[in-house]
Amino acid sequence: MSLVIVASVALDSIKTPFGKVDKVLGGSVMYASMSSKNFCHTKVVGVVGDDFPEAHLELLKENRIDTEGLKIVNGKTFHWKGRYNDFNRAETLETQLNVFADFNPELPESYRKSRFIFLGNIDPTLQLQVLKQMEAPEIVACDTMNFWISGKKKELLEVIKRVNILLINEDEIRMLTNEKNILQAAEMIRKLGPEFVIVKRGEYGSLIYGKDFLFFAPIFPVKNVIDPTGAGDSFAGGFMGYITVKGNLEEHTIRQAMVYGTVMASFDVESFSLEKLKKVDFDQIDARKEKIRESVIF
Amino acid sequence: MSLVIVASVALDSIKTPFGKVDKVLGGSVMYASMSSKNFCHTKVVGVVGDDFPEAHLELLKENRIDTEGLKIVNGKTFHWKGRYNDFNRAETLETQLNVFADFNPELPESYRKSRFIFLGNIDPTLQLQVLKQMEAPEIVACDTMNFWISGKKKELLEVIKRVNILLINEDEIRMLTNEKNILQAAEMIRKLGPEFVIVKRGEYGSLIYGKDFLFFAPIFPVKNVIDPTGAGDSFAGGFMGYITVKGNLEEHTIRQAMVYGTVMASFDVESFSLEKLKKVDFDQIDARKEKIRESVIF
Repeated sequence: MSLVIVASVALDSIKTPFGKVDKVLGGSVMYASMSSKNFCHTKVVGVVGDDFPEAHLELLKENRIDTEGLKIVNGKTFHWKGRYNDFNRAETLETQLNVFADFNPELPESYRKSRFIFLGNIDPTLQLQVLKQMEAPEIVACDTMNFWISGKKKELLEVIKRVNILLINEDEIRMLTNEKNILQAAEMIRKLGPEFVIVKRGEYGSLIYGKDFLFFAPIFPVKNVIDPTGAGDSFAGGFMGYITVKGNLEEHTIRQAMVYGTVMASFDVESFSLEKLKKVDFDQIDARKEKIRESVIF
Repeated sequence: MSLVIVASVALDSIKTPFGKVDKVLGGSVMYASMSSKNFCHTKVVGVVGDDFPEAHLELLKENRIDTEGLKIVNGKTFHWKGRYNDFNRAETLETQLNVFADFNPELPESYRKSRFIFLGNIDPTLQLQVLKQMEAPEIVACDTMNFWISGKKKELLEVIKRVNILLINEDEIRMLTNEKNILQAAEMIRKLGPEFVIVKRGEYGSLIYGKDFLFFAPIFPVKNVIDPTGAGDSFAGGFMGYITVKGNLEEHTIRQAMVYGTVMASFDVESFSLEKLKKVDFDQIDARKEKIRESVIF
């Protein structure tokens, strides 16, 4: 069982109340794959420039993440500069798309038979292009953002129609559906196609809404959040990694996957870049999962 | 086991996107007692004017709520006018304190031996005055609001020092502690005296923070919120009603109490005034409790 992840690879310059970093490894592909690799074999699709440090490629290889779909082209790697004053919202200071501006995801032959895929937050036109290259995708999850909701709604709805799971944050689902009540908004999305809608609510955790059940995941209580960048992608990676290894969307699988996603996001926010995710092992993951259980049982 | 509840009794005029009502029964005492009465014998302390409809007093009596501490004085009952555009925040249009301006809570002799008390959101000076009249209070919970945090912080801290449980919403705990991280803020409050801090987070549910454990309660997923007025007090009534009948602050009791509080709040928001709370029976309460369990187990 392998999971294909398609999205951005970036070098990030970030400032938070706890420090700042310059041109560190980032991007949805990195956070999602360094989370999913704890659960399943992971194959990534993305593009970087020829300035992309060799050490970052090494990191992926050390973690047995398949990089055949990661293109290295002439030019500079996508560079994002942002800061957080409030941890619930990033403020973008500068976006240098660089080689990512011409990202044209092509799946290597060896990826096309994969049955599981996570379409990270990229142009919905590209998400559709990726889907068309898959031979028989079985479980597809996608993420998106306000930029595509306002700029490419029609294409985004085409993507949504074809996925099993939409991951979206709560402001964005309200924007997409024009409905304030989150559960009613999730029901509207479900009727468009996805079996499940995951609503990400930052420090309040997340919920998954399906036809037959609703599940709330709290956060894992991190006392020292250093940098929230990548939390949503780490969640998606943990979630889809577990779904991939189980190979189904049964209720029990979904509930567990939501908690694994929560755990991976909690590790991510404890450091800049992937520093914490690099060091995590499965015992630590399971320990946090049990802590979450203790925080909700009654 | 009986619970004493001290707070406001009001006539409310409220407008929400789903309708409006004029001078309907409200006030913390009413929401809390009509919730707690499902769990334990309840005694209320408050003041109303001679315009207070006899039917409202009848309602309390029918529900075997002890009204010996409810004074009827010459003048008009406290009248609150408010509206909601966003269900997370009430906008006060008018406050006519009327007889509530001179509220001077005196506990009847028969109340003073009660071991359980909920001090609703009133002037902390009055909360202290009530506490002094109790012979041997064992478990005391109190609520408060931004108005007292900014205007009577010293007195409020005196109250907080003497209570077992503080109920507070998340904006207010940040205001009181000047700390953004809710868990760190709760720890700061715990060091001031209370064993437990309940942080109310509106549509995101609530959490309770104690020395030995942290518990998150999600909301019960109400699809049609009609009027959120009284949700916090209904929560407090359900919570303290259950604590009173169990007579302890053991971890298991606390977790169950949080869920009963959540359930009572969920009934409250489904109607204006106390219309829904009036009709609820214990089977319905337990059914919602099980639904909440299903929404968090994994």
